[in-house]
Parts: sequence; C-alpha cells; structure tokens
Amino acid sequence: MAKRQEATGTAAASATDAPRSPCPVACALDIVGDRWTLLLVRDLRGGKRRYGDLLRSAERIPTNILAERLKRLERAGLVRRVQYSAHPPRAEYELTAVGQGLGETLDALGHWGRQQFPVRPRRAD
Amino acid sequence: MAKRQEATGTAAASATDAPRSPCPVACALDIVGDRWTLLLVRDLRGGKRRYGDLLRSAERIPTNILAERLKRLERAGLVRRVQYSAHPPRAEYELTAVGQGLGETLDALGHWGRQQFPVRPRRAD
Repeated sequence: MAKRQEATGTAAASATDAPRSPCPVACALDIVGDRWTLLLVRDLRGGKRRYGDLLRSAERIPTNILAERLKRLERAGLVRRVQYSAHPPRAEYELTAVGQGLGETLDALGHWGRQQFPVRPRRAD
Repeated sequence: MAKRQEATGTAAASATDAPRSPCPVACALDIVGDRWTLLLVRDLRGGKRRYGDLLRSAERIPTNILAERLKRLERAGLVRRVQYSAHPPRAEYELTAVGQGLGETLDALGHWGRQQFPVRPRRAD
C-alpha cells in the first residue's frame, strides 16, 4: 500500500486511520462505510452544493456530522471545497472525479434498495 | 412504506428502526451502512459459512460486532442461519437471495476501491 497518503487523484484515508486490510472493499468502507457518507455523495451528485441544502435533505443529517463528513471527504479527495465569497467566507462543495467514481456503487445500492423497499401507492380506501 | 416489517423475501430494518426517508439508498444504508456489514456479505458470498471463519478475516472483526451483525442480517432477511449440530448447538450462515442481491453493490465498491487503493508490487531495493 505504498504512498497511500501521498497519492494524487485517489482517495486517501486520514493519516491516523490505517487501512484494515488490502481488500479494496474494506479500503472503500474505511472511507464511505457509515450511514451518512453515501447520502452526501448522492446529494452532491444530484446537484446540491451548499451546506444548508445538504442539511435540509429528507434524512436530516445532524449539522456536526455533516461538517465532519465534508471535511473528511475533502481530506480523502472525494469532495472539493470552493470558496465563493470572502466576506463573509462562504463555500460550495462539489464531487471530484474520485467522488463521482462512486456513482456505480450508488446506482447498485439504490437498485437493491428499490427492490427491497418498494414504495407502494397509497390506497384510496 | 406499507408492510415494511411483514414483507416476505425483502430486507426489513428491525422493528425499532424507522426508515430515515423513502430514498432507496437511505433505506439500504439503514441496513448495510457501516464499516462491517458489507465485509460480512463479501465473506459469505466468498463461501465462508462458519462463525469462526468470519472472525478470522483479515479485518479482524470484533466478536461482539460479528454476533450482533449476523443477528441483524438474519432479522433483515439477508442471511439464513442453518443449524448443523444439535449437541452441541452449531450453526452455519448463508446469504439469502436478498443478501446475494448486494453482489452488484460489492462489485462496484470493489472496483472503486481497486482504482483508489491500487496494491503496488513491493520494490526489490
């Protein structure tokens, strides 16, 4: 796992988190294996760019978790922070190519989710 | 989300866990959104069937987490527990069709992981 932290254009776990194994699935889960991260990737992929918009998604991510996840994803190279105002300092977030690479995973997970949790039309009676 | 708990042949969150939203990705992450669950699915998919074998994977899942996850996956309909000895009581675990349905998600995550964390050959010097 040479140059894991220094690699350019690839995802990197934080300097304090050693990979659990060389398995690519485990390495991926070291970064996105939680209840919230892939929802952020979903939202950014869907065009949301501002902190407040991410906060208002249906799952109501707590603000401290959102702030921590955005920093972690930026550190790992999945998200880019773009400052659009200096006074006051305001930023937008967007997926890097690395983050966009999770699209297939999201599609597959959504496909499974739709099969397992079909939203049924409300009955009229 | 009618008959969420009662549905046959579909994954179900535990009775105490309400879905965070109707989003299929969020519903899926309610069940598999953590550092360990998809690694168990990986191992069961790869042919491991016994508790001790699952415990010995490279990531060294703690035994209390393994026990809790297996129960949760069984409850959610992703894993089937098959008792193969009555005295002493011993069981094997296998993926149901619902659990096997996560194969595409695992493949996509592994593909992304291989791109981001390429295992480089050791240098001779």
